[in-house]
Amino acid sequence: MTASPFRTIAVIGAGLIGGSFALASGRVEGVEEVRVWDRDPQARERAAALGVGGDECTHLTDAVEGADLILIAVPVPSISQTVREVSEIATAGAIVTDVGSVKAQPVREVEQILAGDVSQMGGTGEAGGADAAAVRFVGGHPMAGSERSGVDAADATLFQGATWILTPTETSDTVAFDRLGAHLRAIGARVLAVAPELHDRLVAVASHLPQALASTLMDEAAAVSRTTGEGVLSVAAGGFRDVTRIAASDPELWTGILSENRDAVLWALDGFVSRLEALREVLREGRTDALRASLARGQAARLALPGKERAGDLVDLVVPMDDRPGVLAAVTTALGEVGVNIEDLSMRHATEVEAGALVVAVDGHAVAERAQRVLEERGFPTHLEPR
Amino acid sequence: MTASPFRTIAVIGAGLIGGSFALASGRVEGVEEVRVWDRDPQARERAAALGVGGDECTHLTDAVEGADLILIAVPVPSISQTVREVSEIATAGAIVTDVGSVKAQPVREVEQILAGDVSQMGGTGEAGGADAAAVRFVGGHPMAGSERSGVDAADATLFQGATWILTPTETSDTVAFDRLGAHLRAIGARVLAVAPELHDRLVAVASHLPQALASTLMDEAAAVSRTTGEGVLSVAAGGFRDVTRIAASDPELWTGILSENRDAVLWALDGFVSRLEALREVLREGRTDALRASLARGQAARLALPGKERAGDLVDLVVPMDDRPGVLAAVTTALGEVGVNIEDLSMRHATEVEAGALVVAVDGHAVAERAQRVLEERGFPTHLEPR
Repeated sequence: MTASPFRTIAVIGAGLIGGSFALASGRVEGVEEVRVWDRDPQARERAAALGVGGDECTHLTDAVEGADLILIAVPVPSISQTVREVSEIATAGAIVTDVGSVKAQPVREVEQILAGDVSQMGGTGEAGGADAAAVRFVGGHPMAGSERSGVDAADATLFQGATWILTPTETSDTVAFDRLGAHLRAIGARVLAVAPELHDRLVAVASHLPQALASTLMDEAAAVSRTTGEGVLSVAAGGFRDVTRIAASDPELWTGILSENRDAVLWALDGFVSRLEALREVLREGRTDALRASLARGQAARLALPGKERAGDLVDLVVPMDDRPGVLAAVTTALGEVGVNIEDLSMRHATEVEAGALVVAVDGHAVAERAQRVLEERGFPTHLEPR
Repeated sequence: MTASPFRTIAVIGAGLIGGSFALASGRVEGVEEVRVWDRDPQARERAAALGVGGDECTHLTDAVEGADLILIAVPVPSISQTVREVSEIATAGAIVTDVGSVKAQPVREVEQILAGDVSQMGGTGEAGGADAAAVRFVGGHPMAGSERSGVDAADATLFQGATWILTPTETSDTVAFDRLGAHLRAIGARVLAVAPELHDRLVAVASHLPQALASTLMDEAAAVSRTTGEGVLSVAAGGFRDVTRIAASDPELWTGILSENRDAVLWALDGFVSRLEALREVLREGRTDALRASLARGQAARLALPGKERAGDLVDLVVPMDDRPGVLAAVTTALGEVGVNIEDLSMRHATEVEAGALVVAVDGHAVAERAQRVLEERGFPTHLEPR
């Protein structure tokens, strides 16, 4: 583990992300003190009781004064105002970052606020020049955790292996960017630098658009069921369940996320609808070659997703199962003993129309048949399904 | 297990579905003989070698003559022609059904063919009247298996707990419908009766539309990645992976399925796009109440999907893991030993940007914390994520 370039770290906002960052930072070589402050006295007290940030800070100043890194972990609408407050009491040269899931607008607001401060200071001629006096801001967004849970869910390992996007702009201080990146790597994150506007479009396509599609499909399927009086849902198999799984997410949370990233989400929706309309026309006109090419592009891209799914030759073993704790362990133990690697697994739940099953993916037919033999010997009849 | 009303069963088409139906039917009380025929001599030979349908039938007549139930398990475009051939040699009164995944057009074609036969027979005055002479057809579609694999994947238990849709029309023989239903229940299926046109719309919404959305989203995300030079995919988390999973399906297979069910798929696409455009307008106009209501409808419908996911209070335990076979077994065994029921589980694969993890869902926080303690005692540090 590498050392951090920071000695005193302040975390503003004691939630899952702030708390986890405080815990993780406290373990890094070179860091002498981590302080946590929250607008909510109960959250402050809770964080102190959990040992997340040392003693309780009563005032914002207690946390910020003398800190050389300040992490703003507050909701997106409060980011720029919090940076303003922090910048007025921070030590000159301190580096400030945030963890908002939307970047273009907050980063622009913060840069305007800080540019104003620099001008004022330049105007009074104090403190040896603007650069030395002002705080230095670089926006960020860790791709980890959930905004739903508070400091009680804080976890020092939350960022290990996670991507932490930083969003430097043409006015960002490169030394600040480098030092912040070094600290993030020291807590185990991988740092990716992306312009704020592009960040917002990437998360719109990779996260916000899928949510909109899943919610809308589920809403439409339920409407068709009501209209026809027949259960779309009783014929819904694994594919439907996969596509709609995230429709079960919290509507309040997602109303906020979609609204905050509105421009980029609208852009992503327009791109998607254009492409879907093109598919519709190809289907309507019976142009099967173009339809096949379109589906094949989707397939190639999905198989090229980073990770093991690239293997491409997975075979599912479907093991009918009861709901008892023991079955799953018996199956996975049996496969482990004979050295069959489980590439993926999932459960198909028992429903009105479907018996419950454990679905175990293994690499290739030869392995699948060996696994099937082993399981059948141990009393678990299975069948194979190529993916 | 109840007895079947049929004594001699012919299966035309030796693939996964036909082969599995033959194996399952051979086990049912009352059934004396099951015969399998396929247009492809190699498939016939293979089925006979596997013992799927007794001795090899050399001619279609060998299978059909004297059979009182004839299952047509051939590709959708061949159904009506196969029924025509079968009806010319079948014993009077035999019941014929099919397993095509699209129903409106094939059922209409088959009914026209059989109505023609009845008229001819009526015209000649042979065989004691039309009803006694003609075969009796009821369309069907088992919601199980995959059309991709052949008779080698045949499995006598494939239909246990599966829904088998029958599509009777106003001209269907109700006695034939009842007897067919009784046999399907005898092989373990649950029978659902739906009109052919409605069947096609239900599978369009529950299966074909999700495939179109997943493929299009994956295609769009890849296009954005190429255009921006940045990896949408490196910020793609679990939700994106869920929604796009079925984009990896076979393009050839899905070109066929979407084309055969074109009218219903176009209808489903139009309904979906209208609803998505409405969501877009609500977002654009900043009507957060309407946005929240739309997402909440999707959430309520998803939580009401049949099955255990209704529990609603699942907590995910995230267990970082290596890729070795042993880890999964150790974790599931540990939880089984202390009586923690695993409600759902999945794997997050190691990628460029994410460490691999096993995600185990359990029912409620108390159970989750107990499970976490057990796993940590055995050397598996975990963190909790509410769903």
